[in-house]
Order: sequence, then structure tokens, then C-alpha cells
Amino acid sequence: MLSRGSFLKNVAIGDHNQCTKRFFNSNSVSIGCRKPVISSSSSSVGVRSGPVLAVATNERESKSKQEVSYEPSLADRLRLGTMSEDGMSYKEKFIVRCYEVGVNKTVTVETIANLLQEVGCNHAQSVGFSTDGFATTHSMRKLHLIWVTARMYIEIYKYPAWSDVVEIETWCQSEGRIGTRRDWILKDCATGEVIGRATSKWLMMNQDTRRLQKVTDEVRDELELYFPKELRLAFPEENNGSLKKIPKLEDPAEYSKLGLVPRRADLDMNQHVNNVTYIGWVLESLPQEIIDTHELGTITIDYRRECQQDDVVDSLTSVEPIEDTDALGANGSATAAKDVNKSFLHLLRLSSDGLEINRCRTEWRKKPSRI
Amino acid sequence: MLSRGSFLKNVAIGDHNQCTKRFFNSNSVSIGCRKPVISSSSSSVGVRSGPVLAVATNERESKSKQEVSYEPSLADRLRLGTMSEDGMSYKEKFIVRCYEVGVNKTVTVETIANLLQEVGCNHAQSVGFSTDGFATTHSMRKLHLIWVTARMYIEIYKYPAWSDVVEIETWCQSEGRIGTRRDWILKDCATGEVIGRATSKWLMMNQDTRRLQKVTDEVRDELELYFPKELRLAFPEENNGSLKKIPKLEDPAEYSKLGLVPRRADLDMNQHVNNVTYIGWVLESLPQEIIDTHELGTITIDYRRECQQDDVVDSLTSVEPIEDTDALGANGSATAAKDVNKSFLHLLRLSSDGLEINRCRTEWRKKPSRI
Repeated sequence: MLSRGSFLKNVAIGDHNQCTKRFFNSNSVSIGCRKPVISSSSSSVGVRSGPVLAVATNERESKSKQEVSYEPSLADRLRLGTMSEDGMSYKEKFIVRCYEVGVNKTVTVETIANLLQEVGCNHAQSVGFSTDGFATTHSMRKLHLIWVTARMYIEIYKYPAWSDVVEIETWCQSEGRIGTRRDWILKDCATGEVIGRATSKWLMMNQDTRRLQKVTDEVRDELELYFPKELRLAFPEENNGSLKKIPKLEDPAEYSKLGLVPRRADLDMNQHVNNVTYIGWVLESLPQEIIDTHELGTITIDYRRECQQDDVVDSLTSVEPIEDTDALGANGSATAAKDVNKSFLHLLRLSSDGLEINRCRTEWRKKPSRI
Repeated sequence: MLSRGSFLKNVAIGDHNQCTKRFFNSNSVSIGCRKPVISSSSSSVGVRSGPVLAVATNERESKSKQEVSYEPSLADRLRLGTMSEDGMSYKEKFIVRCYEVGVNKTVTVETIANLLQEVGCNHAQSVGFSTDGFATTHSMRKLHLIWVTARMYIEIYKYPAWSDVVEIETWCQSEGRIGTRRDWILKDCATGEVIGRATSKWLMMNQDTRRLQKVTDEVRDELELYFPKELRLAFPEENNGSLKKIPKLEDPAEYSKLGLVPRRADLDMNQHVNNVTYIGWVLESLPQEIIDTHELGTITIDYRRECQQDDVVDSLTSVEPIEDTDALGANGSATAAKDVNKSFLHLLRLSSDGLEINRCRTEWRKKPSRI
């Protein structure tokens, strides 16, 4: 796990304008965050709580009595989702729908990102967080606190096809002084094979002031009920890609797609652009030759600023300098990977004033041949 | 039901360049159809056949022995879908996912369109059509025939929210001499209330020549096994909106959004723009005031030409002239509806040469107040 210091340096304090979006658990609700600033005091880290829907132990049941009771909905009963036996993670099966696959007959990275969001939402809801899409605890709502995401990192080893069944497990835990992380493991349900992993970093923000805020003891107590008691990371490797800093893209970029505009379906109920749209925009500026011959292996996005309906966006991409290919994830040695993998740095910025929306890093491997 | 003559006049022969897409049953596979022409002879209409997955009667089992057997997949076992008792329709429950809702916290029309496609795909697959996304019968594959869509018509009475469960029933039957139709009924699963209905018209096309083709006796025999024995229409009303011709939008349009370009995620495996993207593009040129205050009640799209990756598209919209508000669907009298509903005509065309991609008609009603 990252030390408090390094987390704060790299993610929270070093970047004073991280942005929000649906990923951790929020539904279509997002936060137009501009320059949030740490403003509160408690040093412990965010977690999550609430009454238990499915597999509560006695200990957790008694703790959760302070929260309102949660009536399982028809959806809760029909979903292919369950809490783990110890109540510290949630798993759900998803059948890939026909409209979720694209070129190459396999799911798009946007679909993967959407499913990570969905399983996060359902986990949060099943442990009793608010069902409004914000997944806040009782105390968080009292204090007008919400979750905002700072980073998403996804590794995909094998892309599922239409009608494949994917099981996604997810859990949360502390990350640094003011952060929370949500991890995911994706399996091909038919074979049990791990086909992807992901992690994300979340911060708490005051909805009114738009300032980041440390987690209070009260909120921490609510949240901690659902953290694994032992540290559990989707990426336990020492030098894994999720830790890697994304350098700022040097201008001029090698490839660009300028003047991207949000469509109506890209907006959530707060009229902000949803985070999966950002992924699509990043891909827009990649050279077609890479799209045709390679598939995405990893994607890291650092969220810094959010778009609104009238924003116009430029997507910039350059090949990552070769010295940065030393953290290629768990799929092969850096030496071997250099021959087949390609890494790119990306920047999304507002066309109007050049302000950074997010920076991103992607790694691509040769497409496997498919029937 | 439309007479053969009127169907051919309005849809098949009258428009010599209808276009394809995923709707009937095809997955991500589409057909770049330009100026198809009727070329075959049998006068009967397309249907669907194949071995039976779930509720085959003895009669149908014996008929279907000519087809290859179909092994239920893990997805088939996990889906919340079943054939009706008589085997003539298919129903599936869908839980609305958190990323499928947008402004107003309810599903977008794109989500509805996607779900109609998914249930069509799963119906086709469960009766034993090809599982490649084309949903062709054995004879169709032998003759290189595929389905192309000519029209989609959707009425939505109530938009589901995140975690609502929607049950969608679908079935197919003949439509005119060379056409097939697929209908859908959408219900709120918790209440049983009908929340939407839809219908679509499909034609058979030779994949190699790109010409429309009448259904041969052999194909018709395969297909007819799964048509309701009695005519069954999602819109049995005499003067229902699904029958209404869409007049061409008069230039200049009142509202427009020019220069729309496909994103990478809009493309299917044939590098064509998927049909749900067209819906999004139509909405792009609607005045914001309508989006803010109204919700879509009905949408009709006539497909005429398909887009590819490098196409640039103009979306045009005008208020429909008042004399056309006499077919407002089954939700109220035309007189009452005039006060609150607004109707628009739309045109998507290629920016380069002005060729018509599709024409569309939408009706909007005042948004209900929501919490």
C-alpha cells in the first residue's frame, strides 16, 4: 500500500484540482470540481458503512443498527451479485450484451469501465449506502460530503465477447490520509481465468464548498466496517502500473483530435460529462494504425477537471518516451514487452484556455487473431 | 397490418437505399447498403426458425431437427429470459444499470434502443439462429442473406430509473411481401405496467450484391415456425404512430448541429456507425429548451443510408407543421395532446453531398416532476 505521504504528494495535494465522477459508486451524479483544497482535520481514511443486506456477521449487524434499514428491491433479488462470506467484498456476474461489443467482436474499454462503475454502485448499495447514486454514509450526507475520483487504472488481459459472462469482484480500503481506494478483479466466469484488474483512488469533497476534506472519525467508523481487515490489493506487485506517475504530455503532441464536443447522452443529471466519455475522447486521438492492429492493455487516467455541456475539448496523444516502458504491469518483462507493446501519453484539455481536464497513459499489445 | 402493396410502396421499393443495422437481431455487424434492389422471386414474407432452446412443443421439435443443435451457454442459463409457453415470443428482464441513466435520473432513449436490440438478439439466438450476431437461418447463410432494418418506431410512456427492472417481450411476424417485423412490449416489472412499445421493419438483403431479396420458400419455412399463428401487433390501434409517413424536412431547418463525426466507440466491427448513435445525433439538433422541459414520447426513424468512420454528418430539426399532429399515438387524443406535446421532424445527412442518412420524427411531452 502507498504510504500516506506518497499518496498525498502524488495525488491529493500535488494536484489541486482533481475531478469527480461516477466511478467509485456515484450513479449519474458528478461534481464540477475546480481547485479543491484540503480543509478538514481527521487523519484517517475514508471507507464505507451502512446496514448489511446479505451476509452480515453478528458483529457487523450490531454495528449497523445505527443506520436505517435497507429493503432489498426487485433488482437486488434478481441481480447475479453476492457479498463475499466475510462481507468484505462484493461479486457480480454480468452477461456481455450485444451492443456492448465493437470492432473485433469484443467489449470496448468503455464497457469495462461501465461495468466497474455498476459493480461499485451495487456493492455500495448492498451494504446500505445511500441509493441516490452518491453512495454516501449517514454522516457524509449530514456533512454534505461526497466522493470524487482522482485516478483510475485498468489492466485488461483478455476482452470478453458478446454473451460471455464476466464476474467482477470489488472491495474498498484506505489509501493515504484522506483517500479511499476501490479495487476490482475481473474473471471469465466460464473458465475462472482472471481477465482484468483495476484500482481507483477516491477523495472526499464537501459538496457545497467544493473542497477536499479529510475523513472525520464518525465517517471513518461507518466506513471501516466494510474494509478487508488485512490489506488486499488487486495489484500486489511492487512495481505495478497503477503506481506510475503520468508525465505531462509535451507540446506539440504527435497526434491530436481537436474540437471534441459532448453529446447529450454524455451528460449526467448534473449536466457534466461522464467519465467514460473521457476514455472515448482519449482514444480519439490515437493513430488509426494502432486501433487496427493493437488492443488496449492498460489505461491510467488522472482526473483533474470536469467538462460541462458547452466545453470544447482537445485530445492529444504522443508515443511515450522509451525510458518509461519499465513498468509494463504484470503481463511480461519490460524487455519482452518493448518489442510488441506500445505506450502513449495523452492529454485532454479545454480548447478555450488549454486547462488540463485529465492526463492519461495507455499501453497497447498486438491484437490476438480471432475468428 | 399493412398490405403488401402499401409496405412495398412506403418502405421497400419506394426507398431504394434503406439501410441496415443491429436492431432486428444482428450484433455489431452491419451492412453498408447503398441502393439495394429487389432481385428474387418468392412472394412470402420473412420469419425465423431453428432448433428450440427452451419451450419447444413436439411439433416444433420435429420440425427443427433439420437445423444444427444448439448448446445453451452459461449466458443462456444465467439470463432472465424465457420463451413464452407457445414458443411464439421471448421475454427478458433487465435491471437498469447505473451508467444507463442520464439527465432526470432515468434511462436515455439510447438505453431503450440498446435493450430492444439485446432482447431481439437473445430471442433470435434462443430459437437457434446463428450466434454470430446476424441471426440468420441455415438457408439464409447458405444464400448469403442478412437482415437489414428499414424503420424503427418506439413509444415510451414512462422512463425507468436506475435499478428498476424492465421486462421486454418481443416477437416477429410477416410484413408485406418481402418484409418482416419485430415488435416489443416493455413493462415495469415491479408493477406490471406497460411503459413502452416498439415495432420495426426488416428486409432481407444479399450480403454480396447488396440487393434486397424476396424471401424464398425454404427460408420462409424455417422462419415461420416462430411467428405467432394469429396476427399480433404491439400497436393494434387503427391510426397508430408507427404507420405514419415521415415527410422530408424542408430546408432550411429551424435548428441544426453540423459537422457531427463518429467516435471510435460508435463503430461496429464492420466500421459502420451503429444505429443508436443515429438516435443520439438526431437529439443533438433539438433545442435545449425542449430537452430541459420535455421527455421523448415517440421516435420514428427511417433508415436510408449508413455512415462510415470518415463521414461527417449534419443533424437538422424543425417543428412539425401543425396539421401533422393527428397521429399522436395511443396516449391521448390529438386535441388534448396538442397543448402539451411537441412534434419535430429531423434529417441526418452527409455533410459532403447532402445525401439522406435517415429521416426521423419525434414527439415530446412535458417532463413529469421527479424527486
